[in-house]
Amino acid sequence: MTTALAAKIARDYGTPAAVIDMDRVERNIARVQAACDAAGVANRPHIKTHKSPVLAKLQIAAGARGITCQKLGEAEVMADAGIDDILISYNLLGDEKMARLGALRARTNVTVAADNPVVVADLTKAAAAAGRSLPVVVECDTGRKRAGVETAAEAITLARTISTSPGLTFSGFMMYPTETGWPQAQAFFDEALAGVRALGLDPAIVSTGGTPNMKNIGQLQGATEHRPGTYIYNDRMQVAAGVASWDDCALNIYSTVVSRAGPDRGILDAGSKTLTADTGGLDGYGLILEHPEAKIVRFAEEHGFLDLSRSNTRPNIGDVVRIVPNHVCVVVNMLDEMIMVRGDEIIGILPVAARGKLR
Amino acid sequence: MTTALAAKIARDYGTPAAVIDMDRVERNIARVQAACDAAGVANRPHIKTHKSPVLAKLQIAAGARGITCQKLGEAEVMADAGIDDILISYNLLGDEKMARLGALRARTNVTVAADNPVVVADLTKAAAAAGRSLPVVVECDTGRKRAGVETAAEAITLARTISTSPGLTFSGFMMYPTETGWPQAQAFFDEALAGVRALGLDPAIVSTGGTPNMKNIGQLQGATEHRPGTYIYNDRMQVAAGVASWDDCALNIYSTVVSRAGPDRGILDAGSKTLTADTGGLDGYGLILEHPEAKIVRFAEEHGFLDLSRSNTRPNIGDVVRIVPNHVCVVVNMLDEMIMVRGDEIIGILPVAARGKLR
Repeated sequence: MTTALAAKIARDYGTPAAVIDMDRVERNIARVQAACDAAGVANRPHIKTHKSPVLAKLQIAAGARGITCQKLGEAEVMADAGIDDILISYNLLGDEKMARLGALRARTNVTVAADNPVVVADLTKAAAAAGRSLPVVVECDTGRKRAGVETAAEAITLARTISTSPGLTFSGFMMYPTETGWPQAQAFFDEALAGVRALGLDPAIVSTGGTPNMKNIGQLQGATEHRPGTYIYNDRMQVAAGVASWDDCALNIYSTVVSRAGPDRGILDAGSKTLTADTGGLDGYGLILEHPEAKIVRFAEEHGFLDLSRSNTRPNIGDVVRIVPNHVCVVVNMLDEMIMVRGDEIIGILPVAARGKLR
Repeated sequence: MTTALAAKIARDYGTPAAVIDMDRVERNIARVQAACDAAGVANRPHIKTHKSPVLAKLQIAAGARGITCQKLGEAEVMADAGIDDILISYNLLGDEKMARLGALRARTNVTVAADNPVVVADLTKAAAAAGRSLPVVVECDTGRKRAGVETAAEAITLARTISTSPGLTFSGFMMYPTETGWPQAQAFFDEALAGVRALGLDPAIVSTGGTPNMKNIGQLQGATEHRPGTYIYNDRMQVAAGVASWDDCALNIYSTVVSRAGPDRGILDAGSKTLTADTGGLDGYGLILEHPEAKIVRFAEEHGFLDLSRSNTRPNIGDVVRIVPNHVCVVVNMLDEMIMVRGDEIIGILPVAARGKLR
């Protein structure tokens, strides 16, 4: 079964194709903004999901305080588009990055994160290059074991280091609690807050992260803002996490069934170079809306292997199906552009302007 | 520990960065060409690995008969660069693709694959649009259960369908035997060959595939050409498959250690948006040349999680390390350009010209 829109997409653009439904995008933007507003927490969406200044501006127009970027290259694209309030939630390091960060800070209201004194020492060079102070938040690990100082004592020490470093301003704390780790994050934050206050410092920013954590929004007493990213498109992981429904999934990969060499199997023209090998911890590599019982069991680079053995309905060669990816952020990372639709109407092409900014 | 070259790359370009050693690239090209020559099998390298006309021309200059592409978009880029002998080893389907294939065929010596009559019927439209005959090989499944007809009888039937379809020429067979499946491939081919000969047809092309299959090169009696791809760069999978050494791995991701929040762990600035979640079936996500005992245990999008608990040497924050990816083809697929080096000299930038050609 091929929908009328899928037939049109295949005819005019070919497959595989990335298609975003702007009605859903706008609804997702509005819903998460409303949830942040209701919780009394500012929204600072992470643009790593969409990498588009056009969409970032929709988020800001809907009420977001600013944006979050994960890389300098993303932040530069956003600043070029006129977005002025940017948090780079990442340890930046090295002369090449400090020169770029200095130039960015000279023209933009940018804040950066740090979890160690080596990074803090480098950041002073960016501040010097900018000719103005650079705000820095301390990244705190509250259970994810990614970046972030592991204890409140370290957070306090690093806050002091930042506050006494030439050109740097201590601006607060950034954390990304696990979905069940908010009490742990609260204890960490309370201790860190007391410690920095004893030093005469005050955190202007207390930032939490993650679309799956929208179910915890407002739970951290003292949080000033939240950094959800994936919610603008959603994906199979967000549905599994209970923070989105299938109708909230705004990005589909349209793919053609190109082979049915066995009765119980088929091949899609979307493989790991379109959908990535990232399962997000789920079984199978995406949901096929037309055949939810079909399983994408594995990928070659340009082949998706379909197991149809449990499918009551089986696609024919030439059918164009719609796939909800497991993890939409890594899919967008490979794409130069999106086809924008509203309902059954194709309304334009959206460049993924910050794609390919490796650093 | 940061090598002098790594320090230079980090200073001039920043990390993460994709760096190819052209001495190794040329050595890999020469070695595989020599192996094909010795086996009496033409080399038709698959450009899906490098997506660069510059490198494809090096392969042809070294003796390759032509190239293999997996997508029309790749083939169009290669044809634009003047490469004239192209096999598209994929079922192409749909009006949009047939119009493009027709235009490509009108100007290029292109052959395509098919494993079913729906695709064959569509291909007649491309031939009509081209105004000249279109050569088609039958894709045969010899155990991989990807695309390809499952039996010799089906291959023979499809060969007849092709030969009687307006504008199409039956050109032979294409297969991708598993590494242990060459006897099975031989039996399949022998039966298919006898069948098409009985129809008065003769396969001009009998094509096998895969860099891991270089150890089987020459084993299929009747094979005319082989389609290795990954060998130009090699990766951790090829080393594991026994067809390359670490010194043959020509592409490294240079990455900075940005956090060491715990004594037994570290964070790289290369995550799944740089190295992909594709493990290639291996344990860990790449080899760190400076710290081979360190394990890249998992990724966030821009974070590589290092387990250093078994490392005698542990990197410091700011160290720039070199990573051999597990699967180089999917890494290249995300990159706009490569930094080319010879030994310790940076010699230029290579655009990944056919990247982003989604279809």
